[in-house]
Parts: sequence; C-alpha cells; structure tokens
Amino acid sequence: MNVFTFAFAFLACSLHLSESWIVDPGPTVIATKGEVWPKPQDQEKYEEYFHLDKSQFKFSNTGKTCSLLEDATTRYYKLIEKLSSIAKKYERKIKNKKLQKGSLGGLSTLEINLINACTGLEYPSLNKEAEKYNLSIPSTSGGKAQLTADNIWGILRGLESFSQLLYINNGDVNIYLNATTINDFPRFGHRGILLDSSRHFQPLSIIYKLLDAMEYNKINVFHWHIVDDQSFPYESTAFPELSEQGSYHPTGAVYTRTDVKNVIEYARVRGVRVMVEFDMPGHTRSWGVAMPELLTGCFENGVPTNQYGPMDPSREFVYSFLNDFLTEAQQTFPEQYMHLGGDEVSYDCWETNPDLNSWMDSKGMSGDYKAVERYFMERVLAIVQPKGIVPVVWEESFVAGTKLTPETIVQVWYGGYPSLKKVVEAGQPALLSSCWYLDHLATGGDWKKYYDCDPHNFDGTNEQKNLVMGGEACMWAEVVDQNNVLSRIWPRASAVAEKLWSSYNADEYENVQKRLEEHSCRMNRRDIPAQPPNHAGFCLM
Amino acid sequence: MNVFTFAFAFLACSLHLSESWIVDPGPTVIATKGEVWPKPQDQEKYEEYFHLDKSQFKFSNTGKTCSLLEDATTRYYKLIEKLSSIAKKYERKIKNKKLQKGSLGGLSTLEINLINACTGLEYPSLNKEAEKYNLSIPSTSGGKAQLTADNIWGILRGLESFSQLLYINNGDVNIYLNATTINDFPRFGHRGILLDSSRHFQPLSIIYKLLDAMEYNKINVFHWHIVDDQSFPYESTAFPELSEQGSYHPTGAVYTRTDVKNVIEYARVRGVRVMVEFDMPGHTRSWGVAMPELLTGCFENGVPTNQYGPMDPSREFVYSFLNDFLTEAQQTFPEQYMHLGGDEVSYDCWETNPDLNSWMDSKGMSGDYKAVERYFMERVLAIVQPKGIVPVVWEESFVAGTKLTPETIVQVWYGGYPSLKKVVEAGQPALLSSCWYLDHLATGGDWKKYYDCDPHNFDGTNEQKNLVMGGEACMWAEVVDQNNVLSRIWPRASAVAEKLWSSYNADEYENVQKRLEEHSCRMNRRDIPAQPPNHAGFCLM
Repeated sequence: MNVFTFAFAFLACSLHLSESWIVDPGPTVIATKGEVWPKPQDQEKYEEYFHLDKSQFKFSNTGKTCSLLEDATTRYYKLIEKLSSIAKKYERKIKNKKLQKGSLGGLSTLEINLINACTGLEYPSLNKEAEKYNLSIPSTSGGKAQLTADNIWGILRGLESFSQLLYINNGDVNIYLNATTINDFPRFGHRGILLDSSRHFQPLSIIYKLLDAMEYNKINVFHWHIVDDQSFPYESTAFPELSEQGSYHPTGAVYTRTDVKNVIEYARVRGVRVMVEFDMPGHTRSWGVAMPELLTGCFENGVPTNQYGPMDPSREFVYSFLNDFLTEAQQTFPEQYMHLGGDEVSYDCWETNPDLNSWMDSKGMSGDYKAVERYFMERVLAIVQPKGIVPVVWEESFVAGTKLTPETIVQVWYGGYPSLKKVVEAGQPALLSSCWYLDHLATGGDWKKYYDCDPHNFDGTNEQKNLVMGGEACMWAEVVDQNNVLSRIWPRASAVAEKLWSSYNADEYENVQKRLEEHSCRMNRRDIPAQPPNHAGFCLM
Repeated sequence: MNVFTFAFAFLACSLHLSESWIVDPGPTVIATKGEVWPKPQDQEKYEEYFHLDKSQFKFSNTGKTCSLLEDATTRYYKLIEKLSSIAKKYERKIKNKKLQKGSLGGLSTLEINLINACTGLEYPSLNKEAEKYNLSIPSTSGGKAQLTADNIWGILRGLESFSQLLYINNGDVNIYLNATTINDFPRFGHRGILLDSSRHFQPLSIIYKLLDAMEYNKINVFHWHIVDDQSFPYESTAFPELSEQGSYHPTGAVYTRTDVKNVIEYARVRGVRVMVEFDMPGHTRSWGVAMPELLTGCFENGVPTNQYGPMDPSREFVYSFLNDFLTEAQQTFPEQYMHLGGDEVSYDCWETNPDLNSWMDSKGMSGDYKAVERYFMERVLAIVQPKGIVPVVWEESFVAGTKLTPETIVQVWYGGYPSLKKVVEAGQPALLSSCWYLDHLATGGDWKKYYDCDPHNFDGTNEQKNLVMGGEACMWAEVVDQNNVLSRIWPRASAVAEKLWSSYNADEYENVQKRLEEHSCRMNRRDIPAQPPNHAGFCLM
C-alpha cells in the first residue's frame, strides 16, 4: 500500500541491487563516518585513527587569539561533550576489548594556529580568501592535530570540519577520528539562506537555531527578508508605528532593535553576515498600515478603492522617509550590503491612480510604468550609495534597465541560467537562487534537485563566471512557521551549501547521499530538526 | 521573487478581492473564533456569550461516572488553564472596560450527564452510535452548560467540542464562549490515522502527541503499521530475537511490550482504538534478520543470492510460527480488528525458488503465483478467525480473489472509488485511503485535496454505501521521523477527520479554511506542531 516502494525500487536499482522488489533490511542509505559536509576542496584520509576522550582533550592556541576564537572553542567543546554523552548512552559491555588495527591511541590536543591578529570585533565579509584553512590529524601516535589559518574566519571553518571528523560506533563509548589532511577554502564568497519573517513571524529561538545550523553547513550569509506585504515585524526607533501597527502583534510578533542586534552578534561570532532586505517598491503593503501615505492608492473608475499598491514614486515624502529609515537601518546592521528588493512590482494600482499619472505626464513618462519602476529604484539607490551601502536587488530591477553601479549585486530568482548569463554579461555581480527555492516541495527526499544545480552551469567566459558571487537557498514562509521551518530547510539547504563551498562536481551522487545521511544525523544530534534525507533510516541520538 | 505570490493571487481571486496583485496586510485567512472541528452534525449558535474564569468554573457530573470521565475532565481542565495563561500573556490594560452587548456574564459549570453506567475499563469500538452527544450552552445569564451522552465515548467527544467553543480575544484576559446547542454524532465509525514506525522509528513521545491530536480531531483509530521491510521495532516476548536483531537498534529503537501497552492505554482513555498491522507475506524483510527461515530465499540461475523475498507459503513452520506470534499479539492488543496486510506481494523471489515451485507443482498451483498469494492469506485468516480476531486486509488480497469472511474489512489504497465500489458490491466492508496519503506532497498548503475526497463519492446503493466503514489518512514514514512527522500530519489529517465525522458536504470551502485556521492555531496552543494551513498567518500562543 505504499507508493514509496516504487521510488524505493528505483533507488534500489541505482544502488545496483540485483533484483527489483528486493528490499534489504536497515537504512536505505548507510551513513558515512566522520566525513565533512560540505566536502573539502582537498582531503587525504587514512585508515589510522585516534580516539578522543573529552576529559583528556583540549584545544590549544599556538597563534593569535581573541574572543571570537575563545567563544568558538567553547562552542565546539560543548559539541564534543554532547557527542560523548550520546556514545555513552548506547555503550555496551564488550568482552576482551582490545585496540583494533590502525589505532593511534588517544588524541590530546588540537593546536590552533591563527596567523593574523584578531581583535574579536571583526565582521565577516564577502572575501572568500578569509575562510581558507588547513587541518591536519597526524598519522602517528602521540602527534598533535593542527589547524592553521590566516584569518579567524578560516579558523571557524576549520573547527567545524574538525568537529565533523569525529564519529562514534554503536555500543562503544569512544569518539573516533581518522588521520587526515585537509586544505580547504570556499568556491564562492556569498553562501546564503534567505528567511522570510513576514508571512509568518519566526521566533528568535528559531532564528538562533537556523544560525547554529548555518555554521554547521559553512553558510555565511543570513539574508533576512524581514518585512513584506503581510506583516512588518521590524522595529524602527524613528518610526515605531510601523511595527506597532504593521506587525501581526505589537508585542508577540516584533523584532525589537535589541533582538536584531542580538541576532547580528550571534551570527557574527559564527562568521555569518546578516544582510537585511527592505523590499520595495512592491511587497510593502504592511508599511502602509501605519503610513498609508507611502503607498499608491488604488482607484476604480476614478474613485479610491481604499486599497493600496506599491510605494508611490511620485511623492518626495517617500524618498525623505526612506532616507531617514535606511540611515537608521545602516546604524543597526553593520553589514555593508543591503538588499533593496525591486521584485514583482505590479502596475495595477499605478495605472489607476490619477495623481501618479499626472506626475508621470509632467516627467515625460506618460504611460511608461517600467520607467517609473526604474525611476523609483534609481532614487533609492541614490539614497543608499553615498552612505557606503552596497545594494543588492532582485532580477527585475536589472531586467527593467535600472542604472546600477558596478558593484550592485543582482539576485536571479526566476530566469535561471539565461538570466544569470545576461547579468554577468552586463558586467554585474550576481547571485543565483532560481533553482534553490525551498518552498517548492516534491514527494520524497528532494535534495537532489538542489544538488543538481550549479552557479556556473552556463556558457560564459571566466571573467563572467567570476562575477557570480554565489547564491542563496530561499525559504519563503507562506506555509512555514516555527513548527516546520527548520525541518523544511535542513538538510535540503545542505545541498546548496555544498554546491557553494565545494569544487565543481566535487563528489559522486552515491557518496553524496551517504555523506548527507551522516550530516543530517549530525545536525539532529546537535538539536537541529533536519528531516530524513534519504528514505528509511535511523540515527543514534 | 516569490512564486507563492502567484498562488496567492489565485487565492485572492477566490476570496473575491477586486484586484489581482493587491495584497491586504495581515493573515491570508482570518481565523474563526470558537468554531468546532470537525463541524458538528447540527449546531445553532447565538450572539450571546459567556466568559469563563478558570478559578470559578467547574465540570460537574450529574449522571454516571468512572475513571474515564474523571481523567477526561482533568485533561480538559488543563487545556482551559493553558488557554487562560495564553490570554494572560497578551493582556493589555483597557480603560473603561465594560461588558459588551450580548454578555451573559460568567459561566460557572458544565454539567455532564452520562446516561449509561461506565466502569472505566471500556474499550472503544467501531460502533459510531457510542460517540453521539448533545451539548448546550444556554442563552440566559446564570444558566448552566450541559453535556449529555448515552455513552462515555460520546461524553469524550462532547468535552472536546466544549473545549473548542472557547476562544480568546487579543489583549483581553478572558476566555469566551457563545451560547449554542449542538447535537452531534459521527458519519463513519472508523476514522483512522496510519503511522508507519518501521521506515523510521517514531519515539513514544511522538506517538503520545499524535494520540493527543487525534482526540482533538475526533479521530478514533490509530492504525499502527508497526513493522515492515526496513525494521522490526515490535518486541515479542515469545520471539525477542525479532526486534533484537531486526530493529534499527535493540535498545534505542524498540517498542517493548510495556511501551505498547502504555500506548494502548493512552489511546483507550481518549476513545482511540489501536489497530496493529502485521503486514504479510510481503513487506516482511526485517522479520528475516533473526528468522530467515520465514522468508523465501531468492535464486539466480538456480543459485541462492542470499537475498530474501516474501514469507515462504510452502513451509508449515511459517504458519505454526504465525499462530504463536499472533496469539501473543492478540493478548497484547485488546482491539478486535487486526490488520494482516497482504499488499504489494512481489513474485520475483517466488519465481526463482526451486523448492517453492516444486511445492506449487505438488499442490496443483504450477506457475500460478496469485494462487500462492491467496493460499497464504487464506491460511493466515484461518489462523486468526477462530481466535475471534476480525481481519483487515489491503486491497490486493481482495483483488487476488482471497476468500474473505463477510466481516473482513478491505482497505482501498490504490484503486480509488472504482475499487471501493467493487469491494462493497462484493458485500465486503471497506475503508478508503486512496486519496488520503499524507506522504504525497505538493507546494503550498495542500489540505484541500484531502478535503475534496469523500468515501461516498461513487455510484452505489445505500446498502453498498453503508458498507464503507470510514477511512484512514496514511503517514508512511520513508521521509518522516520525529523531526517532521507531526507537522506533516497536522492539520492535513484534520481535513480527513472532518470528512469522516461531519455530514456530506458539511461546509463551504471559504468557511472551512477559516475554521481550519483556528483549529491549527488551537492545536499549536496545545503543543501540537501543526503546520500553517492557509499561507500567511499568525497565532497567539
């Protein structure tokens, strides 16, 4: 009675079982042990292995240090303790226990060698060189493991990889790790997850868990689509009425400025940038609950309908408001990039509003709503650029012909590879999201479709391909809230994480699914409710 | 950048907004207040309302009572306390607070009048008459609310409805409920949810929450698909090796006999039957980890492949084993019905096994594997029926022509209405599941497809339609585990719950979605992680 069996039979074929309809007992995909996700650029792994006893093991700084490093080792030591307690839970008495072939004994130390000084106040950037690291677990007894990086962000990525080398065996109280050397760095500098906190309010506890999981996946940008048509949960000090009136609930569904600063700090210490998006001129209906004067009033047969469309490009007030609003936002968000939206601008209301149309006539834009769209976005870009903010816009702003400065990033979401190619052909930096919409569901484990997408899968010159900064998995929140958002993101976004970090075609699908089986289980052990990636399975936790 | 907007635009049209692309701020669907899910058969509701102060309110038994009733009122009083604390959390000081028009003051008592004696030891049954109840909230001040039922199960259903009449208003510390009269009973006697605990082990904590939610949805059968090919988590006292070797983990993924008894008791006191399924002869690979002699060995070119197919119908040992195994199961499960599977029997292994084929020759079944399938199921039915067990089988057993006793229920899962019609035309009781597979996913809120299905949507006589006992929503667990199983089931299974309880075409879609918005939020407040049913929204909790 189970249609999944058909899917399974297909999978079984791909696993080279000799018969259809033969199902082996146990998990569909056997998890790897101690494999790193996303796959490192370069790794040698050996048969020899250490065990790690948490009470005998320490992190030791041999280079520079700062609070970012100290916090990180505390964080990773806690993960080791957690893994150790899981191993202990399933310990069985084993008679005549002896060291197996290949054992190098206990590992006492991971020496951390940070080359460049750090103050603890650093903020992560788009510079992917900063995440490079080398990690070495020796293949001789008594040796010390070593992690080296120029930069604190590389140390963080290396600590994550170190923590992922650790594995447990059912029934055995020890943690193990194999001798290995890793030279690693990301393929793309911008590896993001977009979370929509407007269609559903996402509680802070969920955002913190999301950030934990981003660190576990070496994802380095939290694109916070913080407001949209449905609600305005972002508290502005200068315009508190926006969230008081425009949120779902003035106390139960608002991110205060303190909340936002806490999120930014939580992300920063994990090497994650927080790029806020204030989408405009469309997707702004909730701004108009408190401030309808920002929006275009809709008319029918010349009579106002009391409905509202996008921001009104004809009112100077709108731009002076945005100047004040975005100045405050810049003070709140240390991130240099700011997403200004620009997608899905509907002309329906604009077409019906007599004042807007008179203004268009006076500006020589009669009937040309695309020109109005360009006009609006160019005015907004002219507000933010003198402040040092680097804009990010959705694909439509580029398609509409908006004048963009060379550093403005265009995020491609509906046009796929052809759009991506056009953007970089025009010399504009780009982000890919088209193939990474996490709200698109399919029956069964569906991470493979995300894994099959690659930001360089278009014909282009090296120079053009270098303009692809990376991409983002997008979690629109029409049908996700605190109950299902994390299980919907993970491990599906892990597929995106690997495409953005690892080398092109880094691994065979058969290995990838085994590593993802382990990685999902690892996230579960770390309290991330990742859903099962590969059909039937079980995770010791 | 959001394809949901398109879906939303479509929804907006269905909500009769005057413009496409106009999005109102706030939730997409406004929740009702104090509406009952599933919709009662008959309800009158009035403008007048009471408030309910938890410290002044009590349940009072005026009829018979027993532990089942006492436990239930304790349970529902806790839900009132929980609702009260949520109201308190959002209380705002309101000046010049005064009673609004229609207020009937405080409600002090729900009088519960159980007509028939109960012992507390009752076990629920397929008899839908036992769930009938009347509930009356008076429309005059100082009146007492009254709940009357012949049977304890009707009282439980009425208490659930009473608890759902309660609602809160944002900012106001009170709980309210409107004057109303309800005469209610279920349309079908068998309203089930199937949970697969083999593809993923579902922890007890998840099963208890599932049962809580079943009570909140008036679902009365927990169909426990407890074992399958992948794992055997069911502990048998007579054959402990089955779960020791066939489960994912002998201590971490086994339901002990005590666990099973606790689940049955937890379900029973909520008026939920636990119908176990031991699927056979297919879907039994995990039985063969400890006992390969139960299964058919597969051959290739006359040589064993060390792979196994369905149970081996040619071995008398298999039937004597099943006699012992099912005798114990009957002692464990008080439920009279037992599901014996019979689905998706693959002939691949049977075709290759020389011993089986010799036996078939000797029985005059040469080459007729369907005859072998019938033979096996008839032997198993002959084992259980003398014990008083009433069998339930999947559609395939009926299609194969297996001789079934008149009370044997056939569960239709792949053939839809045409199959359902054939089953009842043959005079066999039936359950529908075809259209209620919860593992089938679609982008967006997808409960409507479950709501559009009805067990009587086929041409048939009244006598034939009366043979439809009800149906089940099926949660196969290839891609769900503790991280996502509850949010995947709820509120999608709530759609099924209403189709099985309420009258045919009980409500307009536009009302249904508003009621489901409230019902999902109500489940969230009761710690059931139901996912959002209707796009953007917010729940005070």
